[in-house]
Amino acid sequence: MTHRVWRLGAQVDTDALAPGNWMQHGVDVIAQHCLEALRPDFAPNVKPGDVVVAGRDFGIGSSREQAAAALRHLGVAAVIAPSFAGLFFRNAFNLGLLLLTCPGCEAIVEGERIAFDARAGTVTRADGQVLATEPIPAFLLDMVEAGGLLPQLQRRFQERTTP
Amino acid sequence: MTHRVWRLGAQVDTDALAPGNWMQHGVDVIAQHCLEALRPDFAPNVKPGDVVVAGRDFGIGSSREQAAAALRHLGVAAVIAPSFAGLFFRNAFNLGLLLLTCPGCEAIVEGERIAFDARAGTVTRADGQVLATEPIPAFLLDMVEAGGLLPQLQRRFQERTTP
Repeated sequence: MTHRVWRLGAQVDTDALAPGNWMQHGVDVIAQHCLEALRPDFAPNVKPGDVVVAGRDFGIGSSREQAAAALRHLGVAAVIAPSFAGLFFRNAFNLGLLLLTCPGCEAIVEGERIAFDARAGTVTRADGQVLATEPIPAFLLDMVEAGGLLPQLQRRFQERTTP
Repeated sequence: MTHRVWRLGAQVDTDALAPGNWMQHGVDVIAQHCLEALRPDFAPNVKPGDVVVAGRDFGIGSSREQAAAALRHLGVAAVIAPSFAGLFFRNAFNLGLLLLTCPGCEAIVEGERIAFDARAGTVTRADGQVLATEPIPAFLLDMVEAGGLLPQLQRRFQERTTP
């Protein structure tokens, strides 16, 4: 299975992801304006399963959780970048958005179709080139696959209390 | 109150912080070897309350929690850097180690005495210059001040169950 690439530059900040003008609204509205200042074509056209590939320091700026929530709401399968802001990294996994730290991802281009395997730590480009991603502990990948921290906790409590 | 600065370069990785040769030991032993490849004078001389100021991408490499735990065990009051690896950022706050993202910190020098205020988002240099740090949500600062995620949860459960 391959994923269509939306290619962004370095230092995409949380205000670009969740614009301040729309922060009084819910994530469904904020998501419609996600990245509109950088890529007005993104929110109207991104499809579930697409991926964002960006430059370094993705998610810098504020700690607003809506930045990660908006990408997740739009169905983005993963964000791949050489580095992420610390708070964004924390929020994203808690909210079920997969981030792959991939120093070699700068070569990936707009519109390319790539595959990735978070557990193996690989991104495979359209031409077959394999890029390494930094390993992510299994418990965090489990959490992302469960949809984030709260869905995972809810499921665990249900398993414990259901006979 | 001021803190003595240990100045490191960019991309200090988790193997430098928690060397692979000592990973089968507890954090008390690992901490004695923290940064020994880069700064053999660090672990024997660092004092509780000292701070580490480093270059970008501090904590890259593996996801080993001992990297943050070793600094905390040595009493490091904060690590200040322009950017941190995502997993290190997550681990550090969970383990009660404060990280301050400070783009302007590259100017700070070895041995300088600085002050910081994590809630106000400032680092004050020896000459009075004030540098801004990226804001950290109050709930994360509360967690760090409580000593990390587990001590904070333990305290909350105690408060709930103690009359």
